Amino acid sequence: MSEVESPRLTKHHIAVAQNASGRSLNVPIYKISDNLPGPSVYIQSSIHGAEVQGNVVIYHLLQALQHTQIHGEIVLVPNCNPVGTNIKAGEYTMGRFDPVNGTNWNRGYFYDEQQVRDFAASVDEDESPDIIKAEFKKLLLASIKAKLEQPWGLGLAQQLNLTLQKLAVKADIVLDLHNGPVSTRHVYIPEYAKHAAQQFSIPHCIFIPNVFAGALDEACFCTWWSLQDRLRERFERDFDFGVEAFTLEMGSQEVIDFAEGEKDAKGILGYLASKGVLDNKEFQPAKMQRLGVTLANYKTMFTNFGGMVEYCVKPGQKVKQGDVMARVLNIDNLEDEQAVHQVIAPCDLIPMLHFPSASVLSGTQLYKCFTNYVEL
Amino acid sequence: MSEVESPRLTKHHIAVAQNASGRSLNVPIYKISDNLPGPSVYIQSSIHGAEVQGNVVIYHLLQALQHTQIHGEIVLVPNCNPVGTNIKAGEYTMGRFDPVNGTNWNRGYFYDEQQVRDFAASVDEDESPDIIKAEFKKLLLASIKAKLEQPWGLGLAQQLNLTLQKLAVKADIVLDLHNGPVSTRHVYIPEYAKHAAQQFSIPHCIFIPNVFAGALDEACFCTWWSLQDRLRERFERDFDFGVEAFTLEMGSQEVIDFAEGEKDAKGILGYLASKGVLDNKEFQPAKMQRLGVTLANYKTMFTNFGGMVEYCVKPGQKVKQGDVMARVLNIDNLEDEQAVHQVIAPCDLIPMLHFPSASVLSGTQLYKCFTNYVEL
Amino acid sequence: MSEVESPRLTKHHIAVAQNASGRSLNVPIYKISDNLPGPSVYIQSSIHGAEVQGNVVIYHLLQALQHTQIHGEIVLVPNCNPVGTNIKAGEYTMGRFDPVNGTNWNRGYFYDEQQVRDFAASVDEDESPDIIKAEFKKLLLASIKAKLEQPWGLGLAQQLNLTLQKLAVKADIVLDLHNGPVSTRHVYIPEYAKHAAQQFSIPHCIFIPNVFAGALDEACFCTWWSLQDRLRERFERDFDFGVEAFTLEMGSQEVIDFAEGEKDAKGILGYLASKGVLDNKEFQPAKMQRLGVTLANYKTMFTNFGGMVEYCVKPGQKVKQGDVMARVLNIDNLEDEQAVHQVIAPCDLIPMLHFPSASVLSGTQLYKCFTNYVEL
Amino acid sequence: MSEVESPRLTKHHIAVAQNASGRSLNVPIYKISDNLPGPSVYIQSSIHGAEVQGNVVIYHLLQALQHTQIHGEIVLVPNCNPVGTNIKAGEYTMGRFDPVNGTNWNRGYFYDEQQVRDFAASVDEDESPDIIKAEFKKLLLASIKAKLEQPWGLGLAQQLNLTLQKLAVKADIVLDLHNGPVSTRHVYIPEYAKHAAQQFSIPHCIFIPNVFAGALDEACFCTWWSLQDRLRERFERDFDFGVEAFTLEMGSQEVIDFAEGEKDAKGILGYLASKGVLDNKEFQPAKMQRLGVTLANYKTMFTNFGGMVEYCVKPGQKVKQGDVMARVLNIDNLEDEQAVHQVIAPCDLIPMLHFPSASVLSGTQLYKCFTNYVEL
Repeated sequence: MSEVESPRLTKHHIAVAQNASGRSLNVPIYKISDNLPGPSVYIQSSIHGAEVQGNVVIYHLLQALQHTQIHGEIVLVPNCNPVGTNIKAGEYTMGRFDPVNGTNWNRGYFYDEQQVRDFAASVDEDESPDIIKAEFKKLLLASIKAKLEQPWGLGLAQQLNLTLQKLAVKADIVLDLHNGPVSTRHVYIPEYAKHAAQQFSIPHCIFIPNVFAGALDEACFCTWWSLQDRLRERFERDFDFGVEAFTLEMGSQEVIDFAEGEKDAKGILGYLASKGVLDNKEFQPAKMQRLGVTLANYKTMFTNFGGMVEYCVKPGQKVKQGDVMARVLNIDNLEDEQAVHQVIAPCDLIPMLHFPSASVLSGTQLYKCFTNYVEL
Repeated sequence: MSEVESPRLTKHHIAVAQNASGRSLNVPIYKISDNLPGPSVYIQSSIHGAEVQGNVVIYHLLQALQHTQIHGEIVLVPNCNPVGTNIKAGEYTMGRFDPVNGTNWNRGYFYDEQQVRDFAASVDEDESPDIIKAEFKKLLLASIKAKLEQPWGLGLAQQLNLTLQKLAVKADIVLDLHNGPVSTRHVYIPEYAKHAAQQFSIPHCIFIPNVFAGALDEACFCTWWSLQDRLRERFERDFDFGVEAFTLEMGSQEVIDFAEGEKDAKGILGYLASKGVLDNKEFQPAKMQRLGVTLANYKTMFTNFGGMVEYCVKPGQKVKQGDVMARVLNIDNLEDEQAVHQVIAPCDLIPMLHFPSASVLSGTQLYKCFTNYVEL
Repeated sequence: MSEVESPRLTKHHIAVAQNASGRSLNVPIYKISDNLPGPSVYIQSSIHGAEVQGNVVIYHLLQALQHTQIHGEIVLVPNCNPVGTNIKAGEYTMGRFDPVNGTNWNRGYFYDEQQVRDFAASVDEDESPDIIKAEFKKLLLASIKAKLEQPWGLGLAQQLNLTLQKLAVKADIVLDLHNGPVSTRHVYIPEYAKHAAQQFSIPHCIFIPNVFAGALDEACFCTWWSLQDRLRERFERDFDFGVEAFTLEMGSQEVIDFAEGEKDAKGILGYLASKGVLDNKEFQPAKMQRLGVTLANYKTMFTNFGGMVEYCVKPGQKVKQGDVMARVLNIDNLEDEQAVHQVIAPCDLIPMLHFPSASVLSGTQLYKCFTNYVEL
Repeated sequence: MSEVESPRLTKHHIAVAQNASGRSLNVPIYKISDNLPGPSVYIQSSIHGAEVQGNVVIYHLLQALQHTQIHGEIVLVPNCNPVGTNIKAGEYTMGRFDPVNGTNWNRGYFYDEQQVRDFAASVDEDESPDIIKAEFKKLLLASIKAKLEQPWGLGLAQQLNLTLQKLAVKADIVLDLHNGPVSTRHVYIPEYAKHAAQQFSIPHCIFIPNVFAGALDEACFCTWWSLQDRLRERFERDFDFGVEAFTLEMGSQEVIDFAEGEKDAKGILGYLASKGVLDNKEFQPAKMQRLGVTLANYKTMFTNFGGMVEYCVKPGQKVKQGDVMARVLNIDNLEDEQAVHQVIAPCDLIPMLHFPSASVLSGTQLYKCFTNYVEL
């Protein structure tokens, strides 16, 4: 874990937690810059411990970026949750939540709607957007630091999230690399940045409203979206601070695939080229069919039964209303026609992901599906 | 699991979930009534699977109530979460949350602020409170049923919660029996029902505001508190529908203690006598010192370190500012003065509970404490 | 869970355990017979809770056997470990061992070498093999029952194993249906029954010696193999009681696949036809390449490192010495040539299975491999 | 984690494993010596991750030994299993076994009966015991190293065990500090070293035969016990190499108690004084009642039921035949006389430990008990 300093690339580690042996758990921070003006980019992976493919994507990004001129700077943070990655329960990784208390590792970032309102109210009418943006970033950073230092302390997930957010809050572009259980590639895009759908090379886009539920992408975009809204209300003109944040779902959890990771990295480089971070003509968004849904049309199919399930349709596959999506084995009636129960598609849909185990209790999230989707 | 029907006592089972073998998981429902007018009472235990002492309390309640006349009816639901009670991870029970997704088993109850507003707006000025209450209960029950039947299904914890809430929503008095990790007895009381502090025989009372975060007690009292507020605003007079709901913390999780359970049951019988459900003079609230705090003064002490911890103060013990609350062993420096680190009380306080394991990561909830408490 | 009785097929349930709610956990027992002389067959599945595909195989067996005449009888026991199937830890099933104490669910069957010796010494020289076999089965059953009833009790896994073994001990043919983590199909065959390799339709065969390590197949075949050996030593002639037992590995855990299960069932029916249980010409061992290894040549490849792993070769794939089997990502050195470490095949081999998670600690069982295998 | 070197005390760290982030997991090794002749002592704690009290004992040993002259040397290894200590499942530590595969962390040490026989056969009749001992230690160390370096690798628990055993194998006295679930203090003593019962200050002694089941104490004493036996057989005179090894159970798991740890340390110092390691008169075995049992009389009481249990007798308490040891609540029959079931002591006994959770499945190890014990 030696610290590196090259003209363009620096690497250091930060401690994000301490384990029960009292040892620090460290996260590597890679930073690349050519000291040219441009956006600041922050990319992290594996906040959910079993979602490891993003680490390969960051590896391929680092390989490519070492030979590519950068406008602005790029900060890359792989394996950003060393607690989650290292909790084994059986052969798998118990990575979505703190095993002590069930807290989702991606729900403790900072966002304060009231702070946005107060700040918007305090802005001078003739202040330049750059100054407004810089001032507000300073305020956000101070707020996060204050939260981290409060005298009674904070829970582990929140400590981890805020420690990472101190880095992310400085960025104009934030990419959080995730995976689904058994999943095809898809991306969450805030509605105010819908254009970004054409800049990524990901076939499935979910457009999400300005609502904060604790995740990193929301913490970033809700802040700036709300500030833009408040300033527009107040000054009756548009503001665009150019801050964007996305959650990218890079396939299935528990999988490392170098070849797929190289494709994923190329897609992100295409997006960064679109944003002016790279001017290498090699990197461009792919020409491809893109499908989009609103969050309200992105539906979770829960089971009403418990049993053993065959998943009959694949993530990314177009399914017609009435198609069989799953077959459930009933071990107590294997001899007759009650032995197999079928789950039918209630409408035309495309599953993005399905549950990774054949054994399900009632109330299990079987599939998450695009419905009423449109071509973009 | 035979079903019982006696003149006063009935017992039946309801299925609340199905396991991966396709079998139903059942919960017993005990109901006692003498067909005399009076409040309807609902008492459940073990929604968090490791918190089992409430089941003993219900046992003692049933023993006593079989020889006591009842005004109204009492429904008793022990072991109301058979999923949570049966997830073992090592020798302990992983009972606070769904092991599949981390969802707290006590956060999926139904409450709809907008529905309360709409209903309040629809009430006739001269309608009797009894009719208003009956109409609103009917509406709540219909809403819960509709939610349970929605076509894409629901997650397991929410299915479980709503299935139980179909029973609880009919009651005037709801008691949810819980335990802390290593804990002294305490009770959560909604601020609009502060008088209840004197009716329970529990030394520590936390007064909580009209805020819904998903728990059963909140789902019950927020509904009626909000309705009373909305009707008072509209008609400029007070309404009291007599609905109360409490979370009782009956000591430590992972423990069954019959003698303590008998005392706990006696305390609940004293409360029920205060509410007119029992007129047996034997049952009365105990004479005792009672201490109270607002929720804002009920503070969680998180660690900033990871390590091995001795808990130096006991739940229920008065602690002075500056007292040593915990000692932390540093296994990498056992030979010198850095071997032991002390955690100091930041103010006068009384811990209600502490973490049940000596091994803690940074960000662990070490203690939850009364601060700025008052004698009631 | 109604009990069924038809002329040929009966179904009933037995309780194998009680959960923490005090409820019995039941296992269905399907029995098919045409009351014709022939071998007694016992087939169970899912003793390891996440290995569910055998249940589908039993479903297809039951479908086929309902239209096929049987010589002897066939007992089918799906989902024989309802405890293991229902322990979730994250989205997966913690199915290989008791989560309370780590006991492998397939290591508590009964075998007593000394009892075999004593019995062999007591046999009359001119006793018929049928009588010897019947007498010894009676003794075994009595021993298992006595063990189950010992006054201080038994651990859960052993109680479960012995309860199932009371059924299995009556059989001449025992098949235990398992799965590997991510696995190709393979079968464990006792060396004294090597001919069986040609009767199954499974491409990979592991020949195992007469050593008992607690598993069901071993408990069955060690008993009879040892008895045959002892009697041959004593009487200087061969004995063959015709008892065989096998562990069949039907692909990967956590997967239900109806089409594959139908093929697996067909293979088992071919084996049963070879043994004279079926005389339907439709069922025959497949013509296929079969490869075999001795247990000593079936090798486990452990890692010496921890990290994130891409599995570069597939179960069943022929690998040459020097081929890359795995790539490991080093998140602390993503920028240079230490970023990726390769695991190289130390000799020609065929992996049967690999670990199902990309995240591995040092000492993880990465692959299990055929080495020095031969065509059968 | 700085490395320390003082005239008497040295400290360094060794890596015993790597986690899924690729980081080394380190164990501190403290060594104290005054370079005076005397026995070599090895003391480790927390091989089972939840059994943390031994770390406090080592802390107190280090405090005392820094002011006490030592004959020989003492090596102290706290928190010797950093994997096990850091696997949380709910609020507790899943510390007894590898969560990936269920392997008990205390079953992978090295012992080779055949090697002992071969070595014994190779010894010269007139070789001095000191030379024999030194030669055999060299052989053992070489064997352990060879095992660790075998080309296909080893499982994590075994890697950990052997890495620690490389240190332990050099010692004449080995103490392995453990805890029970909810437990009184007791010690496992090999029968050939029965005298040691009077040298420890622990009230309950279990005498164990020369049988290896994988644990550290067994690996140490079986080796030397067997060697002594073989040499006595061969040369018809007694050999005593003075090697002893013990497992000390220092109360309950999941607990850190500094005051109790100081007493435990004092007891160990008394033992070390008896062995001539210390000549400080302050340290002596306590005068106390000591009770002993053979391993065959140390019985485990398993449940035949599942349910919620009150433990009515305390570890260390004398129980008479017929006394109530546990009460079990039956949540499905709380209204009648079937509500509570009693577990009765089958004979006079003293429980050493009981299960730490009130929720038990059938087959749970409820108590472990001394029966037919004698005063020593």
